[in-house]
Amino acid sequence: MIERIGKKIRTDSSVIRGIGDDCAVLKYSANKYQLFTCDMLMQGVDFRANDDPFLIGRKALAVSWSDIAAGGGVPRHCLVSLGVNEDTPVEKIDKLYKGMTDLAKRYHVNIAGGDIIRSDKLLLDVSLLGEVEKSRLILRSTAKKGDIIFVSGSLGGSIRGKHLKFEPRLKEARYLAQYFKPDAMIDISDGLVQDLGHILKESRKGAVLYEELIPLSAAAESLQEALYMGEDFELLFTLPRFKAKKLLQKKPKAFRPIGEILDERLGLQLIDRRRRSRPLLSKGYRHF
Amino acid sequence: MIERIGKKIRTDSSVIRGIGDDCAVLKYSANKYQLFTCDMLMQGVDFRANDDPFLIGRKALAVSWSDIAAGGGVPRHCLVSLGVNEDTPVEKIDKLYKGMTDLAKRYHVNIAGGDIIRSDKLLLDVSLLGEVEKSRLILRSTAKKGDIIFVSGSLGGSIRGKHLKFEPRLKEARYLAQYFKPDAMIDISDGLVQDLGHILKESRKGAVLYEELIPLSAAAESLQEALYMGEDFELLFTLPRFKAKKLLQKKPKAFRPIGEILDERLGLQLIDRRRRSRPLLSKGYRHF
Repeated sequence: MIERIGKKIRTDSSVIRGIGDDCAVLKYSANKYQLFTCDMLMQGVDFRANDDPFLIGRKALAVSWSDIAAGGGVPRHCLVSLGVNEDTPVEKIDKLYKGMTDLAKRYHVNIAGGDIIRSDKLLLDVSLLGEVEKSRLILRSTAKKGDIIFVSGSLGGSIRGKHLKFEPRLKEARYLAQYFKPDAMIDISDGLVQDLGHILKESRKGAVLYEELIPLSAAAESLQEALYMGEDFELLFTLPRFKAKKLLQKKPKAFRPIGEILDERLGLQLIDRRRRSRPLLSKGYRHF
Repeated sequence: MIERIGKKIRTDSSVIRGIGDDCAVLKYSANKYQLFTCDMLMQGVDFRANDDPFLIGRKALAVSWSDIAAGGGVPRHCLVSLGVNEDTPVEKIDKLYKGMTDLAKRYHVNIAGGDIIRSDKLLLDVSLLGEVEKSRLILRSTAKKGDIIFVSGSLGGSIRGKHLKFEPRLKEARYLAQYFKPDAMIDISDGLVQDLGHILKESRKGAVLYEELIPLSAAAESLQEALYMGEDFELLFTLPRFKAKKLLQKKPKAFRPIGEILDERLGLQLIDRRRRSRPLLSKGYRHF
């Protein structure tokens, strides 16, 4: 659907990258781009009604932070729209905002405005502006054949807790952008297969993943969850082989190699523990 | 509630104006500020389920355009989050986007990204970036005693149609910002009394309105509707007397004087057709 819409939309030259990446990339200053993203979280989809409101508020910002991280940038200013029903106690709204302001303060992000509307289900929408040096911008669309694919942490089972408590990988993303400049990067929100699929599609490439290399979270109950569950909010990025070696020397634990970028015609393959290959189909979390 | 939250939030010096105006105002370039606003529209609150989807999409953008207009600026880039349920036909989504892209194209605004999520009720959230020359920025908080209060068009009864079809007053706002530089400006979304109340509160002023001067829309059924109904999306602004006279000479029909800014202690008064004065209480559209 987003693709269908994207095809109908024209933008002018001040939009460096529009629909189809984690953030919109806009002209800004002589040496920087502005990053612009928004994320909406809804009760029953992204959290449950009885989850801790502090953590719900925190997640609403962290999800957008993660998009800015994936672009190699730094978050700067956000607006928050909150949809609540008439019966919501003031104390709950206070806790939602406490979760937001805590995270905002820690990352030096300004909550510059917002709105409160009436909604039966609790709803949080965050618009976030960030910035990135032109030389450090990382897109989804520029993975190269032969690149090694990395993740920044273990995957799967996030719905059992991590999705409300994850630390957005800003520090790690800035480190990568500054010292390694990945060819492509995305954050894993929809699931490894789905999000790697975005990189492959936008970059017109294929890939192979190795089952034995995919780090499973303690909370993951199966490889399937690591492949498809989503909400991990880890970085998924690709590096040429020589940089990959250097990264593994410098940070052998923080970043884990899980596969390699191939020709587009090879699609996405998984090599299992018995060295058998099978195609992975994109069926991660779908909004429809 | 917004006030309560605003008090708890600290921003750094790159935020010229945060919570409490139509838009957040951010440092941008040597001679411009960036304006940043977001608006969420929900089925059952801002439109009905059976309203024309083209007009719903159009309104979602126009409401944010109107906020940028009130700041004296020009809209540039927006992101659109759409919440729809599984049963929404693709044709309806296409029409929603058609309403948006039509307006975006006409005002040279880029739709630079967005998201689609699952929601029982149709939901549209628009984040908009604009810009304004530093010398043309207009806030709510700087009305002066003795200023004449103007509106850019007739008020009341908007819910009977205008709220879905209004033309955001960008051209008029830019004209005013360039040639008259109003002391304060806001767009009337919550109703004349409520929105004038925002100017008075932020500017620490009082005001008087004259019943006979308030222009009623053809659709308005009473003065009450012009005072309280909201969704007019007309500009409400204040000008010193000498500028007010000049504006009335130049544009006697486009802008209508309706009252005057007074000392704060006088509150907000209405002078009726019999020259009797009565206080106007803020009771426009309340989200709660």
